[in-house]
Parts: sequence; structure tokens; C-alpha cells
Amino acid sequence: MSDVILDRRDLSFQLFEVLDTDTLFQRPRFAEHSRETIEAALDTAEKLAREKFANHNSLADKDEPTFVDGKVVMRPEVKTAFDAYINAGFLSSRASFEEGGMQLPEIAAAACKGMFTCVNPSSTGYAFLTAAAANVIRNFASDTLRSQFLEPMMAGRFTGTMALTEPHAGSSLADIRTRAVPQEDGSYRLKGNKIYISGGDNELADNIVHLVLAKIPGGPEGVKGISLFVVPKYRLDAQGNPGERNDVVLAGLIHKLGYRGTTSTALTFGDNDDCHGYLVGEAHQGLRYMFQMMNEARVGVGFGAAVLGYRGYRYALDYARDRLQGRHPDDADFSKPQVPIIEHADVKRLLLTQKAYAEAAIAMSLYGYRLVDDIETGDEAAAKDAHLLLDLLTPVLKSWPSEFGVKANDMAIQVFGGAGYTREYPVEQVWRDNRLNPIHEGTTGVQGMDLLGRKVWMANGKGLQLLAQRILADVDNTSDDRCQPFAQALKAMLPSVEAATAAAGKLMAEQGPRIALSNANAYLQLMGHTVAAWMWLRQANAAAALDAPEDKDFAQGKLQAAQYFFHWELPRVELDAQRLIDADDTFITMDNCWF
Amino acid sequence: MSDVILDRRDLSFQLFEVLDTDTLFQRPRFAEHSRETIEAALDTAEKLAREKFANHNSLADKDEPTFVDGKVVMRPEVKTAFDAYINAGFLSSRASFEEGGMQLPEIAAAACKGMFTCVNPSSTGYAFLTAAAANVIRNFASDTLRSQFLEPMMAGRFTGTMALTEPHAGSSLADIRTRAVPQEDGSYRLKGNKIYISGGDNELADNIVHLVLAKIPGGPEGVKGISLFVVPKYRLDAQGNPGERNDVVLAGLIHKLGYRGTTSTALTFGDNDDCHGYLVGEAHQGLRYMFQMMNEARVGVGFGAAVLGYRGYRYALDYARDRLQGRHPDDADFSKPQVPIIEHADVKRLLLTQKAYAEAAIAMSLYGYRLVDDIETGDEAAAKDAHLLLDLLTPVLKSWPSEFGVKANDMAIQVFGGAGYTREYPVEQVWRDNRLNPIHEGTTGVQGMDLLGRKVWMANGKGLQLLAQRILADVDNTSDDRCQPFAQALKAMLPSVEAATAAAGKLMAEQGPRIALSNANAYLQLMGHTVAAWMWLRQANAAAALDAPEDKDFAQGKLQAAQYFFHWELPRVELDAQRLIDADDTFITMDNCWF
Repeated sequence: MSDVILDRRDLSFQLFEVLDTDTLFQRPRFAEHSRETIEAALDTAEKLAREKFANHNSLADKDEPTFVDGKVVMRPEVKTAFDAYINAGFLSSRASFEEGGMQLPEIAAAACKGMFTCVNPSSTGYAFLTAAAANVIRNFASDTLRSQFLEPMMAGRFTGTMALTEPHAGSSLADIRTRAVPQEDGSYRLKGNKIYISGGDNELADNIVHLVLAKIPGGPEGVKGISLFVVPKYRLDAQGNPGERNDVVLAGLIHKLGYRGTTSTALTFGDNDDCHGYLVGEAHQGLRYMFQMMNEARVGVGFGAAVLGYRGYRYALDYARDRLQGRHPDDADFSKPQVPIIEHADVKRLLLTQKAYAEAAIAMSLYGYRLVDDIETGDEAAAKDAHLLLDLLTPVLKSWPSEFGVKANDMAIQVFGGAGYTREYPVEQVWRDNRLNPIHEGTTGVQGMDLLGRKVWMANGKGLQLLAQRILADVDNTSDDRCQPFAQALKAMLPSVEAATAAAGKLMAEQGPRIALSNANAYLQLMGHTVAAWMWLRQANAAAALDAPEDKDFAQGKLQAAQYFFHWELPRVELDAQRLIDADDTFITMDNCWF
Repeated sequence: MSDVILDRRDLSFQLFEVLDTDTLFQRPRFAEHSRETIEAALDTAEKLAREKFANHNSLADKDEPTFVDGKVVMRPEVKTAFDAYINAGFLSSRASFEEGGMQLPEIAAAACKGMFTCVNPSSTGYAFLTAAAANVIRNFASDTLRSQFLEPMMAGRFTGTMALTEPHAGSSLADIRTRAVPQEDGSYRLKGNKIYISGGDNELADNIVHLVLAKIPGGPEGVKGISLFVVPKYRLDAQGNPGERNDVVLAGLIHKLGYRGTTSTALTFGDNDDCHGYLVGEAHQGLRYMFQMMNEARVGVGFGAAVLGYRGYRYALDYARDRLQGRHPDDADFSKPQVPIIEHADVKRLLLTQKAYAEAAIAMSLYGYRLVDDIETGDEAAAKDAHLLLDLLTPVLKSWPSEFGVKANDMAIQVFGGAGYTREYPVEQVWRDNRLNPIHEGTTGVQGMDLLGRKVWMANGKGLQLLAQRILADVDNTSDDRCQPFAQALKAMLPSVEAATAAAGKLMAEQGPRIALSNANAYLQLMGHTVAAWMWLRQANAAAALDAPEDKDFAQGKLQAAQYFFHWELPRVELDAQRLIDADDTFITMDNCWF
């Protein structure tokens, strides 16, 4: 099948007709940008993604990296793609013009990244990890570390990793055991084991910069005693070039279900007591630094899941238009040719559901990226509000696209039927790749705890109030008759969300977090579906306003997908809300020995 | 991880405490059986499954069959397992004592089969296909064909296949193009291509007996012109031994996402115009014969999906008990050890949901097998009712365990977290294997059409009335206070099911099947959830009646899983019913060009 990628009409719709990305160009930092420059950046991203990334997505899945003589061996296309990405400037897409960057708004930079993830999430991973690690160094490390590591990372000569997880400490970072002992020269010696480190070894660059969480002996217990270190694979010589081998050893590769092109590694630090590391920022502040990276990564995981959900949908759509099979149930004339399966109502259902999930997921991800722009370049009040909203929404932006992206991919397989189940067709890989997203960077369960345990109550619930205000503003702005039922349905659902929140808060106050949080997943789901419905109201309103004749079918599709979501999906919110209002105790009272 | 298999306490509970399998021993055919003989057969099955099948489930997935010089090359353990299965008599488990069989009731034979599928669905497939093909020959073929093929198939010297699908005709069998031209000697010459033929080539036996759907030129159009043929890989010589090679060629292997140990083949019949085939039964009756096999296969697919759902659950349960991670949300004392993750409410949720799905799926499958026993050995009235009920329920028994088995496996991965996503742990394979089940033997979409398009209206809706009567009888039989709320919730839901049925019937009568069937999936889902809730009421009632001290935890687990299903799952029925009552037109009005 020919490759599919994000649809440019849809992406422009999201950026300029649903979101008012135009208004960013009034801000000084983006004054030299315009809709044309953004579209030009997307053109470049699309071309590069098609030519250098799409070409080996399946190959790197079938022929995954191997561990040979203590080293990783990879397909050469991965490095070609990585270098092309760097050379085209995408790693520096947000850097200022004087630094040689594109000075793009976050939302535009993210849209460009989405092009790459959509066609090849594995190969894209190396560049994304490098950019994220570089960001942490830029924001929190000393001038010395910045001068040593930033430039080669941005130039793609060094890659980056996030080394958090240990064999016995995944979701529970408080329990990491890696130790960092201070030395007289101000450096540290690290000792410990890390696992599931993406990109932890590769053949792409001259050096690898691991950002490692470790504890300095004598520090506070738990998460308050975690520090962050730069640990290069090769220590730098006096000229800043990779010199002596540091005591970081690739213990082995982990064989994943998907994302096979991205190495997942087990690393041993300091087996020979000679692993040099350099403290980033202050001691014991590591988790805070890492969480900046993590929050960005969470929104990024959600967006990646969204574009993979979209990719499966577009493959299924192409297949459904081509594949002839059967006839309508009211037509048993076998002398007539078979119809394309898109004619069958149940195939329409599967396609429309995928569209509704994937396009809502993309919409909410881009909404999140726009909030980043408002935090960074909005006026003070706007920045404050955006910060509150993004904090509140991050668990939703991470989990909803992940959960529903995988569901969409499952439906793509179903559209293909038996063919979808074979490795001769592309959708099974998309499904396998996407399955990682509800797990890494904090499982859906962790996101639920974060949302109901912390985010909802931050700033006395101001974030949630802001969310309700913004939703109601879009309800009030709804003027088209076709969209009014959606607006009213969403408005009518808000009291249930409020009641569920109040019930959880009461339980939390009266009986503590253990019981109240036992239904955190239901709360996360109802909030996710509410936000997704909101995204469909916004898309429906924007679609209803399109008046160009060539947009007619596109707009009708948006309105129908919104109808699907409001008729078939939004009502679920009521069910989850009711369980929270009832303070349902099914999970918390389940005794371990009853299983 | 150590292997998991169906829990014997649970299986006995399903057979003897939920279902009254004991009553079968009063029937003449099963007079020599008892609970003890059934448990002994299960002992043998369990031992064999553990020793000969579980050992290579992962190996045969990683090292799948290959196509070498026009032949299949397979791991040797598959043949060892196949032979052991035959030698232990499981292929003849339902045959009479005088034929050397075990003369088991269907429900007991199925329970034995479940042991094998649970630990290795791929290797089990060859024996199941052989048994199913032998059944068709036994029931419909001439004495000559029976005498030639049955004995070697039952002895495992010949294997069997079902060769239905063609590259352009999967769900739409009306459109098959394989032709069978009659010869003077009464045989036929076949010509055509078949695809996705499971077991279509293998290294297990001396011959392969393909049951091939083909059209005899000049016959009726569509499904009414389909005939069924025996097409052996090797034609038989005068002594009945495999002789000359028949003109059936293995064109290639298909590379599946899961079930990798079962070959999936593309076969070419008659490339050299010398493919001999033998008509089964009468001309143009092929689909009817095949559908007997297909209906059995559909119930079997559902049961297979159920036991795979169960296997993932048990792996996740073992892991959750062992894996230490984090602390309770009200306990931030990091000096304390981490807790097993089963302590976390969201992990309990994931486990309880898997239990609720898998055990309901197993219960409904076994209920279906019991109906087969009533059809075959019940009195006339019971047989008639059982026939109506099984016809009605077959689409549910096929699709609900498939859909919710995969969902359960998805949750098993989530319990394992990052480890679940790796091929170093077993749950990702279970998930991949199970993904086939919502597709083969009729997709979920096809099952929905079958249920709402045909089954509900058969015999003037008598099947549905019977179902309602049986559900209400179980509601009335509910005496334990703990089960009363479940019974009342189920009873309260029935009017919605009836209203949805009536609405669909009205739409069908007034506007024809195309519009009415556009929501067939919603109808299938609501019926599936209603039946699953019924199965939980039956299990809860049986659990409440257990009074042995050693059953206390087991019974509590059943009651809690029932509570989960009634609180968190049954309410969805109302949502789907309302869409049918509204005659929601979202799918049918979606225009192809709006996507």
C-alpha cells in the first residue's frame, strides 16, 4: 500500500481554523512568521518524512537492531534519516534565528514533528530524545555543561537519553538505587542499573549523553533525594571531543512488541567504579528538572499516539475504498459486481469511529501545544491561565490519545479483515507500535492518579474552573444550527462532571486518598471524553464556518464525526460520573485473596 | 514466568455448579460417565497440555513455519504435540466407546480442548481443524468418501482444512470463483485459488484433506451454487494410501500477527488442470454443509478467545502478586518496602475487569456447548429449544468472547507495564494471538448482521423469547441477598433490550434491512453484554450457594466480579439500546466522500 501521512487540509484546519495560530504572528518572537512560512515548514517536513522516514518504517520493524559483541547494529537508513532531520534544521525548529533555528511557535514545531512520527515513530524517537535531553541541559545545567554538550547535541553529533527506570523501580522513582558519589574535582561516580532506556545505544552519533537519575548518599529519602546527572558514553577531552570510554556498558537489548527500530536498552553504570557523571543544577532537584522534560514528553506521547491513530485510519480508509466485497443487505443480485467495503454501514462505523478518535486526539494535542506558546509568549494573564490549564490537562493529553489511538488502530485492523491480521499489510505494525503509548512516560493508571490526586485540586481548583469557562465560551459561541445540539449536549454534561469531582473531593476529605483515588481511572476517562467532546464542538463550529465550495465534503465529514461523538461517545461520561457520585467501592474492597 | 492454564476449581465450578453437567449422566449415552470420569479426562488433558503444548507456544511464535523449496518446514515439537493429542484419544473424545472414543458429552470434550487452546492455540489448531473436517465428512459425505478418509483423519495420519476464502472473496462467499468440472468417473477437476487456509500445508501427517468450496459450472448464482469437495493433497491408491500427488500447490505462506505456529497458506488448485476433487453430499449444498462446521467453529473461536483472555488474566495476576512497586497514596514512608502492585486499586481494577470478561466468556461458551448436548441427547422439546437458543446465540458466543478477550489481554499488558510490552514476557503474544478471533470465521460485523438480520427473527422471534424466559427464570431463582441487586438490575434492563429489538424490527419492516442493519453492531454489543450479565448472575448464584470453608475466597471473588459487571458494564446496554430506539442514522448517512 502507498504510504499515508497526516492530511494537510486537516492539519491546516486544526492550526488555523480551529485554533487561531494566526494570532501568534502578532507576538514579537513570531513576527517574521505567517501562515505561509508555517505551511512551508510543513512542506519540508512532509517531503523529508516521506522520503527518508517512511521508506524504512516497516524494514526497521522486521529487521530490528541487534546486540553484537557488546554493541548495537542497526539498519543504515536510520542514520540517514536522523542526519537528514538534523540537517533540515528540525532539531532546532524552536531555536531563535540568531542561533540558526527556525524560531517556530511550539504548535508549528509540533505539527512538523507529527509528520515524522506518523510515518516512522521509531526512527523519529532518536531525534526527539536528543531534543528533550538538550532542553533539560539548556534550562538547568551549568554554563560549563551547556558549553560542552549543547552544541554537539543540537548538531546531531551527540544523541541524548532519559535514564530513569531501574529494574525494580519503574513507576516508583522514589525507589531508585543508582548512587552518585561526589569526587574532589566536583564530578560524581555513578553506580547502578537502568532498564528500558530508549536510544541507550545506537550507531547514529559520536557520543551519547545520558541524563541519569541517581541518589547522592546522605540525601533525603524518596523523591526528594533524587539528583540528575549528565553521563556521557565517552568522556570529553580538552577540546570537547569524545575521548576516553566512560564506564557505561550496554548490558543488553530488550525486545519490544513494537517501536522496534528504537533500541530499548539495559545499561550498567559503574561496574568498574569509573563511571563519571556531572550534576545538573542543584543536588536533590533532579526529579523537578526531569519532570519538565517528562511533562513535555507526556504531551508528546499523546500526540504521537494521536498521529498513529490517524495513520491507521487513513490506511483503513484507502483499503475500504479499494477493496470490493459483498453487496448491500437489500440487494442479492449476484450478477452485479461487489461493492467497495466502504459502502457497508459497519465499515463506515469503524472508519467514522477512527476518525472521531484520531482527529479529537490531534485536536487536543495541538490545543496543548498552543498552551505552551501562551505560557512562553502570551501576556502575563494568558500565560498564567495557560499554565494552569496545561498542568490540569497533561494527564488527559497523555492518556486519552494513547488509549483511543490504540482502539482506533484495532478498528483499522478490523476494516482490513484477515489481511489486517497479516504482516503483509501495514496496520498491524501501527497497532503494535501504538500499544507502547498507554504505558511509557507514566501509565494510564499513573495519569489517573495525577489528575484526581493532584491536578484537579491545584490552585484551589482554578484549573478546572478555567476549563469549564473555556468550554462554556465555546458553547456560547456556537451559532450554527447543526452545531447547537452538540453544544447543548456538552453543556448538559458539565454538571455531571462537577458532581463527580465534588463527590471525589468529599471522599478524599472524609476518608483520605486511598479510597477516593480507587476510581481515578473512571475520572480520567470521563474527563478525557469531555475534553474530546469539546474538541469536536470546536471542530464542528470551525467546519460549519467553512464556506469555500471545495471544503463542503471536508466540513460535512467533520460535522458527521462530531455527531458520532456526541451521539455514541459522550453519553458514557454520565456512566462514569455516576460511579464516582455513588462512591463505588468495587475495586478498593476487592481482596487480593479473592482473585 | 511459569505457565498458566485454566484453573481447575473454576472449570469444575462452571461445569458442575453453574451448569448442571451432572444431569447429563442420566442420559443413556453418558450413563457410564460421572463427575469423576470427566475430571479424569481433564486431568489427562491438563497434563498433556502442560507437557507437550505449553513447552513450545513461545518457540513456535518466534520460529514460525517457513516456506522452503515449495514446502513447509516447522518446529518438530508441533508434530510431537499433535501425535500425543491423537494418541491420548482427544480427537475421538466424542466418538462412541465401540469406535474407540471417550463418548464424552460435548461440554466435557470442549473443556478438555480449552486446556490445550489456553496454552498453545497454534499447535492445537491442526487437531481442531482435522476434527472439524472429519465431522463434515462423517455427516455429509458418501460412504465411499467416509471409508476412504475418516479413519486416517481420526488416526491423525491425514490432517484436514477448510478451504473457503479466495483473494477476492472473504466474507462474501457468494463470489467465489473456484470451479469444479464433473468428469465421467464421477469425480471433479478443480481450478482456483484459496487464501488464508490454516494448516493448508504442514509436516504433521501423510496427507492433507482439503474441504474446498467451489462452483459447478451451470449451477445457480451466488451462495446457492456453492458445492463442497474433498480435495486430498495426495490422491489415494487402491489400498487407500496416499499415492499420486494431486494438483494442489502451496503458493506461499502468509505471515500473521499471531497464531504464528499455525501455517496460513495460499493454495493453488488445478494449475496443471489435474486437481481431482470428490463431491461431498449433493451438488449446490456446499454452504449448508460448511455452515454446520462453521457454526461449530464460531462457538469454538469464541471459547478459544475466552481461554486466551483467561490466560492473560492469570499471567497478570501472578505478576501483580510478585512485582513490588510503589506504596499506597496515603503512605509516603519511603523507608518501608514497596508493596506488590496487586495492592494498588487501579491494578485491582485491571485484574477484576479481566476476570469479569474472561470468566463470563468461558461461562457463555460452556453454556453453548451444553446446548449442543441438549440438541443431541436431550428430549425432543429440550432439543428443539436448545436448537433455537444456540442458533440465536451463536453470533454472541463468537463475537463477545473475541472482542472482550482481546480487551482483557490488553489489560494484562497494562498490568505488566513496560515489561508487558516486551517479548521477554508472555502477555504480548497472547494479545497478538487473540486478535485473530474477532476476524476469522466471520468478523464481528458479520456476526452483528447475522444476529439482527436473521437470528432474532427466526421462528417468529421464538429464540429471543426463550432467552428472556431463561434469564427471568434465573432472576426468579435468585434467593441470596447478595445476588438480588444483580438479578433486579438484569431484569430492569430487559425492557430496553426488547424496545431496541422492536425498534429495529419496525425500521426493518418500514425501510428495509439496509437502514435497520446499520446499527447491527450496537445490537450485537447490547445482546452480548446482556448475556454476559446473565452469566454473572448465574455464577453469583452458584457462588452464593457454596458453603465449604475452602470455597469462601473463591465465592467472594465471583461475587465481586459480578458486582463489577453489574455496576460498571451492564449500564452500557442502556446506551446502545437508546441509539437503536432513536434509529440513530449516523453511520448510514455518512457519505463516502465526506471521509
